Amino acid sequence: MTAATGIAPPGLGWRDNGQVTLSGPLQRLATDLDAAFLHLARSWAAVEERHPPTIPAAELHRIEYFESFTHLATFTVALDADEENLEAFSRQPLGDDGVVALRRSRPVTDVLTPAACYHVYVHHQGEALDTPLYVTTRNTCFRQETSYEPLRRQSAFDMREIVAVGTRDEVVRFLGETTALVDRLLVALGLEIEWRVATDPFFQPARNPKYVLQRVQPTKHEAVFAGDLAIASRNLHEQHFGAAFDLQRGDGPAASGCVAFGLERWLYAVVATFGPDPAAWPDPMAAVAQVTQ
Amino acid sequence: MTAATGIAPPGLGWRDNGQVTLSGPLQRLATDLDAAFLHLARSWAAVEERHPPTIPAAELHRIEYFESFTHLATFTVALDADEENLEAFSRQPLGDDGVVALRRSRPVTDVLTPAACYHVYVHHQGEALDTPLYVTTRNTCFRQETSYEPLRRQSAFDMREIVAVGTRDEVVRFLGETTALVDRLLVALGLEIEWRVATDPFFQPARNPKYVLQRVQPTKHEAVFAGDLAIASRNLHEQHFGAAFDLQRGDGPAASGCVAFGLERWLYAVVATFGPDPAAWPDPMAAVAQVTQ
Repeated sequence: MTAATGIAPPGLGWRDNGQVTLSGPLQRLATDLDAAFLHLARSWAAVEERHPPTIPAAELHRIEYFESFTHLATFTVALDADEENLEAFSRQPLGDDGVVALRRSRPVTDVLTPAACYHVYVHHQGEALDTPLYVTTRNTCFRQETSYEPLRRQSAFDMREIVAVGTRDEVVRFLGETTALVDRLLVALGLEIEWRVATDPFFQPARNPKYVLQRVQPTKHEAVFAGDLAIASRNLHEQHFGAAFDLQRGDGPAASGCVAFGLERWLYAVVATFGPDPAAWPDPMAAVAQVTQ
Repeated sequence: MTAATGIAPPGLGWRDNGQVTLSGPLQRLATDLDAAFLHLARSWAAVEERHPPTIPAAELHRIEYFESFTHLATFTVALDADEENLEAFSRQPLGDDGVVALRRSRPVTDVLTPAACYHVYVHHQGEALDTPLYVTTRNTCFRQETSYEPLRRQSAFDMREIVAVGTRDEVVRFLGETTALVDRLLVALGLEIEWRVATDPFFQPARNPKYVLQRVQPTKHEAVFAGDLAIASRNLHEQHFGAAFDLQRGDGPAASGCVAFGLERWLYAVVATFGPDPAAWPDPMAAVAQVTQ
């Protein structure tokens, strides 16, 4: 499949900072695929939540995010608003190398969203749930990588998630049934994948007990396209987020789980399967109608 | 109207970093309003473009962005990927004050999108246009402000734009006709606004010749709701972007113009006008169907 890496459908623009522009039919396909995922979310009457682009670092620190994914994090930074500092910057904002000469910056307190579902646990923290909570949310996610490839591995990409917070049984049932729906959607779209056990991209994995635990007791599965591209994942978090964010269900911390879709990677899978001509692409809304009827 | 500032419709979450969460009916209203703006864009057969969340600082420097809007800019920053640096960070990522202890960071080269339409000129730079170019794009925009208010003034907010690049006549015609469409949409929605001459939020305006020029020769008009909230703007850029990004139309640099919609501010206007009960809100798709039929 490596040969197909360099697909160049019309409407794909690529920058060497690891980000893409989508336009015309390719952007329409992205919109329609996301509409199909939203349609799946309706099977759970999931509430649609639109969260901010950043998360307070102090919130992510509660789940030891920076210890586990040190190398992936991207932060926001701004100039110290002191007039003299701003003036100095305005006189020479960039060096000859095109690098921003920041002068004094404000304290860095926010992280650009690394995964869409973190916001859900932060937002609902402290809640005691009488019924399971089903949420769907989409966000632009940022990850620093050692190299980038259009649609396959980007420094910024869009992720749609469907999230369940409840008892362990409720979450396990949600993951099983949602996976079955995703499988049917993939068949209706004509995309072939294989579900595989996977691990999260931990920093120095061998030293991280969470990675070791994930190896022993798999909690992450990925829908792998063409042998090497994970286009969706299914994750059982057990009580990891429930305990960290004081989300209660029944007598103790809630369990949680999510099914995540990497939008640009679905575009890749469609174009790699059906070619660059939009006329040959499947219609995501027609496909999802078959699945959920 | 100041009294209505503290509106709190169901589904609005607010963080002190100046960002909101929208959920349920309020998020649906945001989706529907954006669909209505997209519908207006179809009057121009505008191509839909989805651009990245950041812009290379070197590109924005070509229009002297950092000299003009020094105080607004937000950048992305990441750790230097050197293993020792990452390890040091992972051992103590945050200080006791919750501030991120960045250690050595990578060179800062990208700005978080300050306005959705900049991407269009960057993306199409160097093109010689045979016909006018109409594009619509939406992005999350970041601006540092001295204070924030939910839905009214946020550190991150969503902006939909319809952009025209062509001869000055083509752009002027686009701006006039699009303004008329927006006016009809506002009437159909039941929202009252007043168009006013405005200026961009320049850094140290009195010292900036661009601000002085904008006072003498108005190029920006805003649709102002309830006397103090600009929910849309109409901007004639003359050849500012055409010249900077080598966009040609006819014998010289293209002119450009845009109509911009501040998504969250439209939510504010709807809730302030019709109250917090979603049952009383107008249906944006029904409204826009009246306008474009």
